[in-house]
Amino acid sequence: MAHIDLGVNETEFPGIRGPLRFRPETGGPLLELVEVLLRRPHPLSPGERELIAAYVSGRNECTYCCAAHSAYAAAQLDEGMALVDQVRADPDHAPISTKLRALLRIAAAVQVSGREVTTELVEAARTKGATDLEIHDTVLIAAAFCMFNRYVDGLGTLPAGDPGWYAQASEHIARSGYRQVV
Amino acid sequence: MAHIDLGVNETEFPGIRGPLRFRPETGGPLLELVEVLLRRPHPLSPGERELIAAYVSGRNECTYCCAAHSAYAAAQLDEGMALVDQVRADPDHAPISTKLRALLRIAAAVQVSGREVTTELVEAARTKGATDLEIHDTVLIAAAFCMFNRYVDGLGTLPAGDPGWYAQASEHIARSGYRQVV
Repeated sequence: MAHIDLGVNETEFPGIRGPLRFRPETGGPLLELVEVLLRRPHPLSPGERELIAAYVSGRNECTYCCAAHSAYAAAQLDEGMALVDQVRADPDHAPISTKLRALLRIAAAVQVSGREVTTELVEAARTKGATDLEIHDTVLIAAAFCMFNRYVDGLGTLPAGDPGWYAQASEHIARSGYRQVV
Repeated sequence: MAHIDLGVNETEFPGIRGPLRFRPETGGPLLELVEVLLRRPHPLSPGERELIAAYVSGRNECTYCCAAHSAYAAAQLDEGMALVDQVRADPDHAPISTKLRALLRIAAAVQVSGREVTTELVEAARTKGATDLEIHDTVLIAAAFCMFNRYVDGLGTLPAGDPGWYAQASEHIARSGYRQVV
């Protein structure tokens, strides 16, 4: 059970979904941020951006966010969950573009600290074709999930009890985006 | 110089102000989030909430965010920068309310990981009078600054060259809030 009374049935609204309802004044901008970062038209596909979110959430050991964004990534990538699992386990050898691999290295640095991002990491991504926008958004996606992961776990929310919940949620996200969540 | 071309004069727009202009689609929800968390009417004063932001930013060693939010806190607290310095150096002995001290302990845990927030930390804050809203907002302020700090440093932005910049910015923030920043 969460550390505070979220006013919702936590089985029905696991993870961040309780806090988003508890405080809609902050829930609105949080959902708008993730909608822009993960869903709007972009040189990185929604599946690739969800992969960055899942990867960072895994590194932060946030059970709910990692399961949710792994499912959302899998639903939007041709290779499905097999690729998500490979990237999470060993991004250096997963069958992804060299550009995405270089961006994941930046995301891994951000997860530790912003000060871990070096000129070398950024130049390596640029060499593989990453634009300023892609580098910016990778840094902000990784930073934002360092927030979301702490928000979800810092309030002691529960992950979904039924593993099928994530696959079902992924259909809604892929179809209607994040704004409909609250 | 920042890792990417932010399209602004970084002396004029230090820290987060360059990235907010580079990507207004994400800058909008980020500013809305911080406006709600740090400025809207609340049982914790704006100065107390800025103190949580400055404290977390100091623990993340983010030079720009720590200097900026220390200045914004000082501008809105009767005791000014002397209290900010005391809280940042030794929150256990700074002359603040026992409730705020208990909330700062929760913020310190969130800075490490959401999973560091224990039932004991939350109950201690509750014993000192903290409400569910105050506990929620403390967790989210701390989590949000773990994002902002990584965003600012992950893009390699520069802090203000002139220390007087922060005091000047604090007058604008105290008067007009965060939405006017972009």
